[in-house]
Amino acid sequence: MTTADIGLIGLAVMGSNLALNIAEKGYTIAVNNRSPARIDEFVTMAKEQGLAGKVIPKADLAEFVQAVSRPRSIIIMVKAGAPVDAMIEQLLPHLEQGDAIIECGNSLFTDTQRRFDYLKPKGIGYLGAGVSGGEEGARHGPSIMVGGSKEQWHNAEDVLTAIAAKFNGESCCAYLGEGGAGHFVKTIHNGIEYGDMQMIAEVYGVMRDGLGMAPQACADVFKEWNRGPLNSYLIEITGHVLAAIDEPTGKPLVELILDKAGQKGTGVWSAIAAQQMGVPATAIEGAVAARSISSRKDERIAAEKIYGKRSAGKADVTLADLEQALLAGKIVSYAQGFAVIAKASDENGWKLPLSTIAKIWRAGCIIRSRFLDQMAAAYAKGDNANLLIVPDFVTLMKENHGALRKVVAAGAVGEFPLICLSAALSYFDSYRQAQGTANLIQGQRDFFGAHGFEIEGRGKDLHGEWPSTLGN
Amino acid sequence: MTTADIGLIGLAVMGSNLALNIAEKGYTIAVNNRSPARIDEFVTMAKEQGLAGKVIPKADLAEFVQAVSRPRSIIIMVKAGAPVDAMIEQLLPHLEQGDAIIECGNSLFTDTQRRFDYLKPKGIGYLGAGVSGGEEGARHGPSIMVGGSKEQWHNAEDVLTAIAAKFNGESCCAYLGEGGAGHFVKTIHNGIEYGDMQMIAEVYGVMRDGLGMAPQACADVFKEWNRGPLNSYLIEITGHVLAAIDEPTGKPLVELILDKAGQKGTGVWSAIAAQQMGVPATAIEGAVAARSISSRKDERIAAEKIYGKRSAGKADVTLADLEQALLAGKIVSYAQGFAVIAKASDENGWKLPLSTIAKIWRAGCIIRSRFLDQMAAAYAKGDNANLLIVPDFVTLMKENHGALRKVVAAGAVGEFPLICLSAALSYFDSYRQAQGTANLIQGQRDFFGAHGFEIEGRGKDLHGEWPSTLGN
Repeated sequence: MTTADIGLIGLAVMGSNLALNIAEKGYTIAVNNRSPARIDEFVTMAKEQGLAGKVIPKADLAEFVQAVSRPRSIIIMVKAGAPVDAMIEQLLPHLEQGDAIIECGNSLFTDTQRRFDYLKPKGIGYLGAGVSGGEEGARHGPSIMVGGSKEQWHNAEDVLTAIAAKFNGESCCAYLGEGGAGHFVKTIHNGIEYGDMQMIAEVYGVMRDGLGMAPQACADVFKEWNRGPLNSYLIEITGHVLAAIDEPTGKPLVELILDKAGQKGTGVWSAIAAQQMGVPATAIEGAVAARSISSRKDERIAAEKIYGKRSAGKADVTLADLEQALLAGKIVSYAQGFAVIAKASDENGWKLPLSTIAKIWRAGCIIRSRFLDQMAAAYAKGDNANLLIVPDFVTLMKENHGALRKVVAAGAVGEFPLICLSAALSYFDSYRQAQGTANLIQGQRDFFGAHGFEIEGRGKDLHGEWPSTLGN
Repeated sequence: MTTADIGLIGLAVMGSNLALNIAEKGYTIAVNNRSPARIDEFVTMAKEQGLAGKVIPKADLAEFVQAVSRPRSIIIMVKAGAPVDAMIEQLLPHLEQGDAIIECGNSLFTDTQRRFDYLKPKGIGYLGAGVSGGEEGARHGPSIMVGGSKEQWHNAEDVLTAIAAKFNGESCCAYLGEGGAGHFVKTIHNGIEYGDMQMIAEVYGVMRDGLGMAPQACADVFKEWNRGPLNSYLIEITGHVLAAIDEPTGKPLVELILDKAGQKGTGVWSAIAAQQMGVPATAIEGAVAARSISSRKDERIAAEKIYGKRSAGKADVTLADLEQALLAGKIVSYAQGFAVIAKASDENGWKLPLSTIAKIWRAGCIIRSRFLDQMAAAYAKGDNANLLIVPDFVTLMKENHGALRKVVAAGAVGEFPLICLSAALSYFDSYRQAQGTANLIQGQRDFFGAHGFEIEGRGKDLHGEWPSTLGN
């Protein structure tokens, strides 16, 4: 009887594509699904792609588990939340010491941590893997961020490394740390993705409303930018989206799409995680806010009736300014995102390798870019410092923050909402100034709440002698 | 035997001051404290203030409870968190059906909700009251935001209404809603307070570094502003803080205070609550971020060495611009804060009266202001709409957003970190534009994740026919 190298439960689009990817790389895979009809469909799909010989379909869960060689690695790819817990409970009676479950959905990292802690004393490994790259990535090479049981990781390492995207021959899959580390990194990946997308949308807004450019002209600019320092998947697809024509009307598709953005929660999770750890992530927060405001279309229509349309004229910026501003904004946003990861690493004892994270994001995932290759190289040299003080990025910021200033100022005057770009600039300016203005805040806090302040050389918890203000 | 109108446990500064306030208003109060020595100190204090006749000191908890007339109202004023739960457990065996605990600390509203739910089936009322105004407010008239058991609220209503601050004769104490409603509103009060303080600090930074003004000159401006539309406690005390002289050195105190701001968590709670409900609160988030960055003084010093000192010259703004910008920024920040409250009200079925909330913030609390009287009046007229589309505030925004633009632009060009003011402006500009740029984001999301988009008249969940981008 043939035994499978690995098993996979959950044959919806992402699960099917991962399974086909695994089979294509030469591994035998046992597959299972709640509805057996879907297993038959999958087998048909595998046959069509010449991969049926590598697939062992098993509609019965016990037989499915038995078909996987020990120590077993079983991927589950079901809806995040309660279905994952239910699946774990169904699997448990069939597993043996040393086996492992590899959960590849978009789970909240604290859930993954809880499941890891639950299974550890039972001798069952638990790996939470963040998979980025969408359906196409799952089929042909995603970025895979793995966390959880290190011992069992090695049982699945060959398969997961083989199916991941490659950048200059290096696999975009890595084990990052214990417990929920993989899903945490995936969450922040998505938060950064929110920031990238929002900053691109803001720049598009300036092109459209401030420079009077048609979608095709914008598309040409993004195509051009994709050959420069902004080279990335998101810049590339932005060019395609802007160039797309709606066939029924012959109009640019982007002008027909309603400006109400959806979100599935990972941006919010990133923002909450950052807040809980006290790490500023204003670019991610801005991107989440922008999507939320976009969804309130009726309120925005009402507000425009009240305040009138944007009355300002053309924006006093060049396309080169916009390109540089986008690059500077992106550096700040990544600096914030990586600072969140570094802090989580400290708090959870994960020892997350920032350089490796940048490396496995270079291909396969949505934020893949040339920029991440520079970041991986920069972090490989040194410690986990804020990206804004890592030498190669200091150079980039010095070259580009002037353009970011120009664009943010033009946005303020010209009534262009630059939520993310202005958040990036104000973070940079706060971060780079040795003398801030929180001395006033400390004075206020001592005035009304006796919270105390510090004077260098004279100690902390000092108090002022404040007048009474009962008259107010 | 004299029975007390109300009881209070926990005689640290805030508890003592509340108890003295209650006694001064003519109510008899039983007091208890873990350490009996502190009870003796309190009695001495009460004697000195001629209030000993109204105080029944009881070191024994059972005797303390017996001393309060039924149905009992017992205020607890202990450290937030586990000590509150421990206190509830200690009290429980002594309480009778219909009695109530009134917890007046800075508790997380979800904890208050949990305690309310725990005590309800036992027939014990639970009120969570947010008390703002610092030590002086507690003694002479705070703002009190009450939530929890409505029936038992009426037993304590006279006392709490009497001790609260008054605005034009109206008490700044009100029952707002069930469960954790009172502590939730107090949390958002503090979030708004963060925003107010940060925006004041940003404006001070422009005065100091962009207009070259000494602290006393800044103080004079704030004193002047306190006579205009910005009239408020925080503007008043800012004038005092800026005018204060450090006696040992004869220098302005504010220039000696270290620019590292502390925070005790309510700003973060506000930001997390807003994120969890999907309501943009970028001004609060910006204020929290600014304090967090301020605390990283060593990193900031390192970054300034790398990037060099701010090299821009004077800021091209007038003091009138700054005054107007602060007012516009404040309106946006309050619009966000009240939107968070409105959403929480919907989600929890609290039916929070926005007009009443604005009313009880007009005196006693840290954010008290003339502005809140206008807001109470505006909300009394209509529904719980976003403040940016409430008529009186539309007029104010129309008059002042131009100055906010000018200041944010000057900050961008002049390297002044205006985290909160720029967050306020970009929120306003996003909110007031009927046509945003999220159409591009929806196109991108459909491209890489098949998330679908909407075209008016043609339906939702439409998809584009996108080219493959595997080459990237």
